[in-house]
Amino acid sequence: MTQKINHNYKKLEENYLFTEIAKRTSDYMEAHPNEKIIKLGIGDVTRPLAHKAVDAMIESLQELKKGDSFRGYGPELGYGFAKQAVIDYLGQYGVELHADDITIGDGIGSDISNITDLFHKGVNKVLLPDPVYPLYKATSLMDGQEIIYLECNEANNFLPAPPDFASDMIYLCSPNNPTGAAFNFNQLQAWVDYANKHNAVILYDAAYERFISDQDKPHSIFQIPGARTCAIEFCSLSKTAGFTSVRAGYTIVPQELEREGMKLNRMWQQRQTTKYNGAPYHVQRGLEAALSPEGIKQADENIAYYKKNVKLITDVLDEKGIYYTGGHNSPYIWFKCPHGMNSWEFFDYMLDTIHVVGTPGVGFGHFGEGFFRLTSFNTYEATKEAMERMRTIL
Amino acid sequence: MTQKINHNYKKLEENYLFTEIAKRTSDYMEAHPNEKIIKLGIGDVTRPLAHKAVDAMIESLQELKKGDSFRGYGPELGYGFAKQAVIDYLGQYGVELHADDITIGDGIGSDISNITDLFHKGVNKVLLPDPVYPLYKATSLMDGQEIIYLECNEANNFLPAPPDFASDMIYLCSPNNPTGAAFNFNQLQAWVDYANKHNAVILYDAAYERFISDQDKPHSIFQIPGARTCAIEFCSLSKTAGFTSVRAGYTIVPQELEREGMKLNRMWQQRQTTKYNGAPYHVQRGLEAALSPEGIKQADENIAYYKKNVKLITDVLDEKGIYYTGGHNSPYIWFKCPHGMNSWEFFDYMLDTIHVVGTPGVGFGHFGEGFFRLTSFNTYEATKEAMERMRTIL
Repeated sequence: MTQKINHNYKKLEENYLFTEIAKRTSDYMEAHPNEKIIKLGIGDVTRPLAHKAVDAMIESLQELKKGDSFRGYGPELGYGFAKQAVIDYLGQYGVELHADDITIGDGIGSDISNITDLFHKGVNKVLLPDPVYPLYKATSLMDGQEIIYLECNEANNFLPAPPDFASDMIYLCSPNNPTGAAFNFNQLQAWVDYANKHNAVILYDAAYERFISDQDKPHSIFQIPGARTCAIEFCSLSKTAGFTSVRAGYTIVPQELEREGMKLNRMWQQRQTTKYNGAPYHVQRGLEAALSPEGIKQADENIAYYKKNVKLITDVLDEKGIYYTGGHNSPYIWFKCPHGMNSWEFFDYMLDTIHVVGTPGVGFGHFGEGFFRLTSFNTYEATKEAMERMRTIL
Repeated sequence: MTQKINHNYKKLEENYLFTEIAKRTSDYMEAHPNEKIIKLGIGDVTRPLAHKAVDAMIESLQELKKGDSFRGYGPELGYGFAKQAVIDYLGQYGVELHADDITIGDGIGSDISNITDLFHKGVNKVLLPDPVYPLYKATSLMDGQEIIYLECNEANNFLPAPPDFASDMIYLCSPNNPTGAAFNFNQLQAWVDYANKHNAVILYDAAYERFISDQDKPHSIFQIPGARTCAIEFCSLSKTAGFTSVRAGYTIVPQELEREGMKLNRMWQQRQTTKYNGAPYHVQRGLEAALSPEGIKQADENIAYYKKNVKLITDVLDEKGIYYTGGHNSPYIWFKCPHGMNSWEFFDYMLDTIHVVGTPGVGFGHFGEGFFRLTSFNTYEATKEAMERMRTIL
C-alpha cells in the first residue's frame, strides 16, 4: 500500500549532544557541589540588544494601539524599508542587490529549511561539509535526499574544496558553525565555479559574517563573480545584533538563478506569499534600525566584547602551540584535543580537572572526532578565569 | 532525466482576484473622480490592538535592553506560559489539552502550510470544500496531491457533509472564510466520524472561532468526541485580538493522532524543533496577555464593533429576503447575487450604481459563482452608508 505519511522522518536521529553535555555536567556538580563550573559551550548571544533596535520596535508597537496608525497584514516578502536596509548594508561590501532579490523573514532556521520546498524530494545529491551544523543534515534526511559528506580536517583547515564529481545542492556556512573557519575569496570562487559548472545550487549560511575581521574573507557570497547564477544566501540579525529571541533575517535569491527552466526567485516568492504572512511590522522596523550605521555601531560593540573573549582563548592555544580554526572571524574556536584524546575524553578531562565545559567536536559529525569547540559568549571575567585554568592542563 | 526541482510549482495559478478588483475600482475612480467609493471587501482587521497585549510586548522588549534580563533563543515549541494561556482559554469550552499537544507559532498561514511536510507528496487525496480559502489549494498543488472539490451550495448551506468515498487529508475552516458558515456540533461530529473511519486527517482552521455567537457551534474541533485521533487544529490571534501584523498563533496536534505507525505529534515536534526557532519571546508574552480574561475582554470589544457592522449588512439582506450565510458567527457575509447576476456582473453593478466594492464569490472557486462576499471590517459609519445605498438596488 502506498505510504501517505512522510516516512523519511524515521531517519532522523535524536541528537543527544547537548542532553549528554547537560547530564555529565549536572552529575559532576552533584558530586562536587563546591566546584565553580565555567560554561564555554554557550551557542547563543548574551549581550543586551542594541537600544536603537529595541526603541524602534517599541515605537512601532505603540502605533498599533491607535486606530489611525494601526497596521494589519504587511507584504509577505518584506517591507520596502527593510529590504532597503539590507541593500544598503550589503552595499558597503560592493554587493549590488535589487529589492526583488530579497525577502525578509524570521531568521535563517526557517528560510534555509523552507527553501527545500523548491527542490524535488528523494532525488537530489546533497553535499554537507562534516563537521556540520545539524539543521542541514536533518532537513536533507526529512526530504529523503542522498547525503554526501565532505571531510573537513587539518589538511584543508576545515574548509573543503569542491569534489571532482557532480552534486545538486551544497550547504556552505562561512564563517562556519562549529569550526569558525571562513572561506577566503579564492576558496569561495572555486565553489561558485563548481556550482555553475554542475548546475548545483549553493545554500550559503552567512549568519556569522559580522564577525569577519580579515580583509580577504567575503561577507556575502554575492561578492564572488558568478554567484548570482548558483547561490542563495541566508543571513539573520541573531549573531549580528543579538536578535535570537526577536527573530529577524533576510534571504537573497537572485533573479538570475534558474534550474530546469524555472526561476528559483519566482518559486521562493510563490512559496513565501503562499505559506508565510511576513515578518512582524515592528520587527522589520527593528531590523531597519539594527542595520543602520548607528545600529551596527551598537552591535559591533557587543561583537568587540565577544572578540576580547576570543583573544583570551586563542592566546592560550597559540602559547601552547595547539592547532585550531576560527576565533579571528568567528565567536567559535575549534581546536585539536591535546594529549591525543578524543572529543568526549577531553570533555571529561576538562570537567574533572578544571571544571570548564565546552562542546565535543564529534557531536557535529564523524570528522569532528578529536576536536573541541569553545565559544566566546560567556563574560570576560569567566572566560579569563577559564583560560587561566586551561593553561595548566594543555 | 530526473527532475531535481519541484515542478509542481508550475501548477500554481496566479490569483488575479484582488488585482482585478483593484484594477476595476481604480478605473472607475479615474472615470468618476467625484464619487465616494466605500470598500466592504477588506479582509483584515482594522481596530487597534488590545492595549494589554501591546503593553506586555513592550515590557518584554525592555527586558532585552538589559544584561541581567536579556533572553536569547527560547524553546522552539513555545514557552510554557504561552501554552498554558492556550490551555486555559480553550478550557472554558471544555477542551482538555496537555502542554505537549500545543505548539506556539507565528500564525495559521505558516503552520497549516508547514504541516504538509508530515505527509508524503504526490499520493494523498485531499478534500477541499469549494469555495475555499486559496492557501489550502495552493499548498496541495505545490505538493502534487490529488485535489477533490466538495460542492458547497444553498442546498447544504455551504457546509458540506462527508462524501461516500475515502480520502486522506481534509481542510475544514469553521466559521468559514469566505462563506462565514459555521458547522454545528452534529455536522462536525459527522466529519470526525468520517475521518476516523477512513484514517483521514482533518486540518481544522479555527481562525474565526472568537466570532461565534451560537451556542450550538463548537469553537474547537476538540469539543467533538473522537477528534483527538483524527484532527489537527490551527488558530491564531489575528482575528481574535488583531494580531495580523504582530503574528502569533497556536497549533494543536493531539498525541493520540497516529497514522501508519507514526505519531503526528512527534513528527510535528521534530519538524518545528528542526525548521523553526520559536515565536519571539515578547510576542508570546503578548499572546499570553491577549488570551487572559482582561485581554479577551478588550478583544471582544473590537469584535462587538465588527458585529454591529455585520448587523447593518444582514438587516438589509433579511429585509430584501436575499439568501446568505455567515454574519452571525463571522465577520463575513456571503450572499446570493440579486437579479440572477453572476459574481462579476454584480461587482460591476454595485460599483457603477452605488459605488460600493466587495469581493466576487467566484474568486474563491467554481461553486462561488453567483455569490458575493462583504466584510464587516470597515467603520460603522461607512458600513451604514454603504447599506443605505445597497437597500436602493437590491
